Amino acid sequence: MKDDAVREIPSKSDKFSEWYTAVVLKAELADYAPIRGCMVIRPYGYTLWENMQQRLDARFKATGHVNAYFPTLVPESFFRKEARHVEGFAPEVWWVTHRGSEPLEERLALRPTSEAIINAMFAKWVKSYRDLPVLMNQWCNIFRAEKATRLFLRTSEFLWQEGHTLHVSREEAEQEALMILDLYLDFVRNDLAMPVLAGLKPESEKFAGADRTYTMEAMMPDGQALQAGTSHNLGQGFAKAFEIKYLDENNTEQHPWGTSWGVTTRLIGGLVMTHGDDRGLFLPPRIAPLQAVIVPVLFGKNDEAVLEKCREAQAVLDGVRVKLDDNPKQTAGWKYNQYEMLGVPVRVEIGPKDVQKQGAVLVPRDGSGKRFIKFADLKQEVDKLLDELQQSMYDNALARMQAMMSEASDFDGFRARVAERPGFVKVHWCGEQACEDRIIEETKTTPRVMVLDEQDVSNEPCIACGKETGRTIHYARTY
Amino acid sequence: MKDDAVREIPSKSDKFSEWYTAVVLKAELADYAPIRGCMVIRPYGYTLWENMQQRLDARFKATGHVNAYFPTLVPESFFRKEARHVEGFAPEVWWVTHRGSEPLEERLALRPTSEAIINAMFAKWVKSYRDLPVLMNQWCNIFRAEKATRLFLRTSEFLWQEGHTLHVSREEAEQEALMILDLYLDFVRNDLAMPVLAGLKPESEKFAGADRTYTMEAMMPDGQALQAGTSHNLGQGFAKAFEIKYLDENNTEQHPWGTSWGVTTRLIGGLVMTHGDDRGLFLPPRIAPLQAVIVPVLFGKNDEAVLEKCREAQAVLDGVRVKLDDNPKQTAGWKYNQYEMLGVPVRVEIGPKDVQKQGAVLVPRDGSGKRFIKFADLKQEVDKLLDELQQSMYDNALARMQAMMSEASDFDGFRARVAERPGFVKVHWCGEQACEDRIIEETKTTPRVMVLDEQDVSNEPCIACGKETGRTIHYARTY
Repeated sequence: MKDDAVREIPSKSDKFSEWYTAVVLKAELADYAPIRGCMVIRPYGYTLWENMQQRLDARFKATGHVNAYFPTLVPESFFRKEARHVEGFAPEVWWVTHRGSEPLEERLALRPTSEAIINAMFAKWVKSYRDLPVLMNQWCNIFRAEKATRLFLRTSEFLWQEGHTLHVSREEAEQEALMILDLYLDFVRNDLAMPVLAGLKPESEKFAGADRTYTMEAMMPDGQALQAGTSHNLGQGFAKAFEIKYLDENNTEQHPWGTSWGVTTRLIGGLVMTHGDDRGLFLPPRIAPLQAVIVPVLFGKNDEAVLEKCREAQAVLDGVRVKLDDNPKQTAGWKYNQYEMLGVPVRVEIGPKDVQKQGAVLVPRDGSGKRFIKFADLKQEVDKLLDELQQSMYDNALARMQAMMSEASDFDGFRARVAERPGFVKVHWCGEQACEDRIIEETKTTPRVMVLDEQDVSNEPCIACGKETGRTIHYARTY
Repeated sequence: MKDDAVREIPSKSDKFSEWYTAVVLKAELADYAPIRGCMVIRPYGYTLWENMQQRLDARFKATGHVNAYFPTLVPESFFRKEARHVEGFAPEVWWVTHRGSEPLEERLALRPTSEAIINAMFAKWVKSYRDLPVLMNQWCNIFRAEKATRLFLRTSEFLWQEGHTLHVSREEAEQEALMILDLYLDFVRNDLAMPVLAGLKPESEKFAGADRTYTMEAMMPDGQALQAGTSHNLGQGFAKAFEIKYLDENNTEQHPWGTSWGVTTRLIGGLVMTHGDDRGLFLPPRIAPLQAVIVPVLFGKNDEAVLEKCREAQAVLDGVRVKLDDNPKQTAGWKYNQYEMLGVPVRVEIGPKDVQKQGAVLVPRDGSGKRFIKFADLKQEVDKLLDELQQSMYDNALARMQAMMSEASDFDGFRARVAERPGFVKVHWCGEQACEDRIIEETKTTPRVMVLDEQDVSNEPCIACGKETGRTIHYARTY
C-alpha cells in the first residue's frame, strides 16, 4: 500500500462519481487497463470476488446445480439462430476473424452471454425426459464492447456466473427462475447487506430472447439504480432455435423450457457505492477479505508485551479473517486510516494500558465509537460486533433506499419528483411503448422493476396516457 | 448417465488413442464443441478441475501468492514488445479485429499467455523495492489455435493458472521458479498420483521469452511424454521490454527479475491416461469428485432394512465424498459397471446378508478384490482403503514409468531403443541444435527434460557428434 492511499479522497456527497473512482483505485480493488473499456481486477478486489463466488456457488450446489465450462468463441451462425437475441447483443460483440495469419471462414463472437453455445450443446445431450431437468452453471469471463470504462460498473470484459437450465414444463422453468431470484435476494441482502427492489422487468428491458426477466435493482446514493442481477424465463425460444428435443414419458417429441440467470463483478461496484464513505470502503463482514485488523499501539516502552498480547489476540481470533499489522515502519495512526480506507469492519487496538488492564479496544468501521472490552471476551465481542455490523449495514442501506423511494400520481408530479430528488419513483403505467418513450424523454428515467406484490392492487390511470391499469412500476435513472 | 456408458470401450493396450477418447466421452468429462479445436468441459470433468484448483490454490496462497484478473484482449503492440515471445506464439494467436460493426484501429490478441498484459500493468504498479516481491496468480481461459481437437490434451481454448512474479534479484527469481516446480511436483505426485521426471528444458524447448524453463514430464502408457507443467525464470527480458523499473534501497533505478509458471486442464487428460483401464476411469481419492459409492443389493426381500443400512452408511461416512445410489430402476450390476467407469475409488455394497452379519463389502476400483468388513469399522476401513489406493496408484504408475525408461550410449542403440520400446531414453548430448535436429529426424523423439541431479555426473561423448559433455537428457516422443 502506498502512502498516498491515506490522503483525502473526494467527498462522497459532493462528488460522487470522483469519490467512487478514487476509492476503487486507492483501495486497489481495480485499475484501468490499456485496452479501451477494460480493467484489471487487483488482488484485493479479486479476493472480494472469490468470497462472493464461494457463497454463491455453495447456494447453487445446494439447489442441485453443477458447474461446467463452454467455449468462449461462438460461431456467428449459432449466435444468429435466436432472432431477438442477436438483435439485442450484436452491437456489443467483439469479433474474431483470424487464427494466426489465416482468415476464418466464419467469424467467431466472443461470448456476450452463452445461451447460443450452451443450448447448441444441450441439443446434443438431451434426448429423453430422464435427462431433465438440466441444471448447469458456468463461472467465466464475458465480453461486451464498451467505449468508456467505469470500473466494475461498465467494462468491455467482466466476470460473472451464468446459470442455464432446461425443464419439462413452463411451470417448472418459471419456478426455477423465481427460485434463483430468491437465492440472489438472499445473497445480496444477507451477504452483501445490499437492499434491492425485486420483481419483473417490463417488455422493453427484458433480456434479448427471454419471455420474462426477473431483476433485482439496487439504489445507489446518487439516486441512480443499479441492476444487480437477473433471472430469465426463456420459454421455448432457445430450445426451438437450437432444436433441443426430447421424448416425454409418452414417447412424444417435446421442446424443453429454459431459464438463464447471472450476477457479475458489477456487484463489487455496488458494494463500494452502497457502503463506502469519505474515509473509503466499508465492507460487510460476511464477504470482507479481512474482517478484523489488530493494530499494536507502541510507545517504545513495554512494546514487546504489547506485541505479545497482539499475537495472542490473533490466535484467539481463530475463525475470524484477521491480520496483525505489526509493521514497525508505520505509525498506529497511519494504520488506522489505511484499514478504514480498506473497509475492514473491526479494528482491535492494543496498547500498554490495555495490556495492563487485561483488555483491548474495539473500533467498528461504522464510526459508532470505540469500546473497551476484557481480553477474555475478545473472540465473543468481535463475533458479536461483526454480526451487528452486518445487520446495521443492511438496515442503514435499507433506510437510505427507502428515503429515495417516492410515488407520483400524475405526470407533473412525476417530473417534479425526478427534478427534486432522484431515486425510485413508483407510478401507474399501462406498459405501452409510446408511454414509456414519453417518460424516458421527459424525465430521463427508465422503467426498472415491477415489484410482484405491488401488482393488481389498484386500477389507477397510466401516468402518461390515462388508460386504466392494475400495474405499478418503479422508474429511475440508471447505471 | 446413459445405458451405453457401461458398454465395452476399446482396449487400452490395443487401441490407446480410441480408448482415451471413448473414456473421456463416456465418463462425460468433456465433449467436442462445434468450433474447430474447441471442447466443452462437462460437469464431471469440471468437478475434477475444481478439486485440482482448490488443492493448488491453497498451496499458492500458503506460499504468499494472491489471485488477480487481467484482460483477455492484448493489443498487438504489447504482444510484440518481447521479440522471442511474439515469435514463439504468433502462429497460434486468435485475433479480434472488430467491435460490433466497427473495425479496430489495432488488432487485439486473445491471450495465448499473459506475460505481455501483466508486465505492462506491473510497470504501472512497481516503483520501489518495497513493492517487491510481486507474487500474483491468475485462473483463466487461454487461447492457442489448434486445427484438431484432442480432448484436454490439445484444444484451442483451455483453462489454466498462470503465476507471474517479480523479484529484486536473479537468485530470488530462480528460487521462486524452483519453489514452484517443487510445489507442482508435490501436487502431481501426491494428489494426482502421477509420477513425473522434473528438471530443465533444453534451449529449443524453453518458453518463448524465458531464460530457463523448468518442466515436469509424465510418461503415458503408450510411451509418449506429456508435459505436465512448467515454471520459467524469465530473467529481465519482460521487465526490460515493458520498462518495469524500481528504485532500490540506494535510490538507484533497477529492473526486477521475473518468473511465470502454469498448469492446465491438460492434467485431466494425463490423469485419465495414467490411471484408467479397460473398465474406464480410475481417479485418485484426493481429487475424485466421488470417493465412494454405496450400492444397495436388493432382492425384493428385506429391501427396506438394506436401504436403511445404506443410509446409515452414508451418515457414517461423513467427511468422505460419498453417494448412495438407491435408484430402483437400475440393477446393482449396472451400477457396479457405471461407477467403475466413472473411476470411483471405493464401492460399498450392502445386501440382506451383510445387514444380518452387521457388515458391508468394500470393493476397491483397482481390482484387488472384495473385502468383508464389520459395519462398525466402516469409516475407518474406507479411510484406510482410500489412503492405500492413493499410494498404490502412485506406486504402480511409477513402476510403469520406470519400466519405460532406458538409456542408450550410442546412436544405433538409441534408434534400436526407440524402435523396440517407446518411453524416455536417456542419452548424453552436447546441447547443440545440429545434434538435436539429427536426433529428431532419425528418431522422431524430442528432448524432454534434463533431470537436475543427473547433470555433471559423467563426461561421456554426445550421442550425435561425439563431443564430450557432462550433460544427460531424456528424449521421448510427445503429446
